[in-house]
Amino acid sequence: MINRQLKLARRPVGRVSLDDFTYEEVVPPAVADGAVLARTLFLSVDPTNRVWMKDVPQYMPPVAIGEVMRSGGLAQVVESRIAGVERGDLVFGMTGWQDYSLLRQGGALGLAKIPSVPGIAPEKFLGVCGPNGVTAYAGIIDVAGVAEGDTVVVTAAAGSVGSAAGQIAKLRGAHVVGIAGGPDKARLLVDHYGFDAGVNYRADDFREQLKAATPDGVDVLFENVGGEIMEAAIARMNPLGRIALCGMISVYEGRGTTTYDWAPIMAKRLKVQGFNLIDCGRLWPRAARELSQWVGEGKIKADETIVDGLEKAPEALNMLFEGKNSGKMLVRVA
Amino acid sequence: MINRQLKLARRPVGRVSLDDFTYEEVVPPAVADGAVLARTLFLSVDPTNRVWMKDVPQYMPPVAIGEVMRSGGLAQVVESRIAGVERGDLVFGMTGWQDYSLLRQGGALGLAKIPSVPGIAPEKFLGVCGPNGVTAYAGIIDVAGVAEGDTVVVTAAAGSVGSAAGQIAKLRGAHVVGIAGGPDKARLLVDHYGFDAGVNYRADDFREQLKAATPDGVDVLFENVGGEIMEAAIARMNPLGRIALCGMISVYEGRGTTTYDWAPIMAKRLKVQGFNLIDCGRLWPRAARELSQWVGEGKIKADETIVDGLEKAPEALNMLFEGKNSGKMLVRVA
Repeated sequence: MINRQLKLARRPVGRVSLDDFTYEEVVPPAVADGAVLARTLFLSVDPTNRVWMKDVPQYMPPVAIGEVMRSGGLAQVVESRIAGVERGDLVFGMTGWQDYSLLRQGGALGLAKIPSVPGIAPEKFLGVCGPNGVTAYAGIIDVAGVAEGDTVVVTAAAGSVGSAAGQIAKLRGAHVVGIAGGPDKARLLVDHYGFDAGVNYRADDFREQLKAATPDGVDVLFENVGGEIMEAAIARMNPLGRIALCGMISVYEGRGTTTYDWAPIMAKRLKVQGFNLIDCGRLWPRAARELSQWVGEGKIKADETIVDGLEKAPEALNMLFEGKNSGKMLVRVA
Repeated sequence: MINRQLKLARRPVGRVSLDDFTYEEVVPPAVADGAVLARTLFLSVDPTNRVWMKDVPQYMPPVAIGEVMRSGGLAQVVESRIAGVERGDLVFGMTGWQDYSLLRQGGALGLAKIPSVPGIAPEKFLGVCGPNGVTAYAGIIDVAGVAEGDTVVVTAAAGSVGSAAGQIAKLRGAHVVGIAGGPDKARLLVDHYGFDAGVNYRADDFREQLKAATPDGVDVLFENVGGEIMEAAIARMNPLGRIALCGMISVYEGRGTTTYDWAPIMAKRLKVQGFNLIDCGRLWPRAARELSQWVGEGKIKADETIVDGLEKAPEALNMLFEGKNSGKMLVRVA
């Protein structure tokens, strides 16, 4: 067995490239008690990967130079020294950008067994039935407390988290408006994901479009982007509105600013809450169960954009930042 | 009866002056059904008065040019056309900067009868047992959910809202650190109000003092000031911290910026919630009852700084912004 690894060689500026990583082939590690050795099948490609490459304050330590690039992934157990986890089981864990990883139990980043649900492909558990769906669920239900009649705006709405967030809000009885890049995606939000309106942030009349789509103002903003798109949405917010701040992808590559006006928070008495999957342990079982059920019943649609090959991981990450994906971005490794 | 009035003549820049107002003497208005005519005894002087003079987006319409300056006040009923409110009753209402006002029932700004509580002066119901105390209570209990063991930082801590907020947090079992201007006030926070530590933001080593006073980081920030003081406190915050954003007095006079970094909200998964007394109707009865009891039992101390004369209202407002008050700032009108 050869374990191919991509280790962070330097901190990228702007788009990432394969040159930012060192490629190595090593022997997979020996399995310790309380761990499994697992073979990576799919890598989950997420905006947070880009943040982890940066040496800035964040919710986890940055990936160190020389360390295997951190990533969630879907993996198959090759050898297990955890009771109840068998060879052949499919698991979600922090595989990293490599073929084989040691995954442990417990904690926010511990492995999770992927259930076998008829009609749901295992890789759905990397997206809508897994981290992205649980994140969307946490933001819409827990953080924002979306209720019937709320107007909800979702940014990066055609992405894995955004499309799930909007659909969950629809199931809650909200009026849902998605913001995405380009007319095709804006249309996709309505025609495919069932949003009430889709707004193209690249259009010259973006702000007018957003205003027209939110005649009663905005009660909840599920925010993935930051920057001018977020500011435009905040300008539409009603008093006592809630912002579920899931991410600010517009600044993850080092461009743009994270200083925005706090005056509307005070003037409109908004609640702005940053949240992250690592705080969702308590919520996970209920959210994952409901999400799987909704996906199984066709109430929530989820799509994947898949590229093949471990060495394509940097490119896949760039595609995410260029908005070239639709739904969950994945790298098929094996 | 002559009704002296101070009407807003122009929008002040920086400190206010009597020249920013027109002085008029008029006949008090006739009493309508559902209203009382009341004589102002004390004006409540609050940072929000300064905001109301500005033509900027805010939680209420700005005071119009030519309109009597808006203000809360303690007043005595002269004539009543409200059932259950009698001549001679003391009430809290939006009296404005004038001798006589028509006060109505209902809504966030409707009049409220001031109870007669032995040992508690009526003017306490303008401060700790009234709007300021309820604001402090809402922020500490409702917005921030302060619990035993939390480290709570309060800015403008020697003011009416701040001193109440810190003392309520102490009653909740928190470790409480106050930030105020000058060594005397910092000492007062500990010696008089019972805070665990007082930090002087004017000191050269302010940030080091704050760090030393919060060895376990900060879980809750009760924020009245904004600007660099707020940013210093946010830098000390722990993951999942809560910011009860009560005000940003540092920018109310038109100086300073309201754009601050949002990155810590995301990186630390903070909750930032703007809140205001006008949203506290539901909370008011319980808060006012508990506050009066605590004040009566000596568990919460509250002080007043009183200046005499309606025409001193602008000066009193400036004193607030210069930090010359200790506790509740009042103008005695009659």
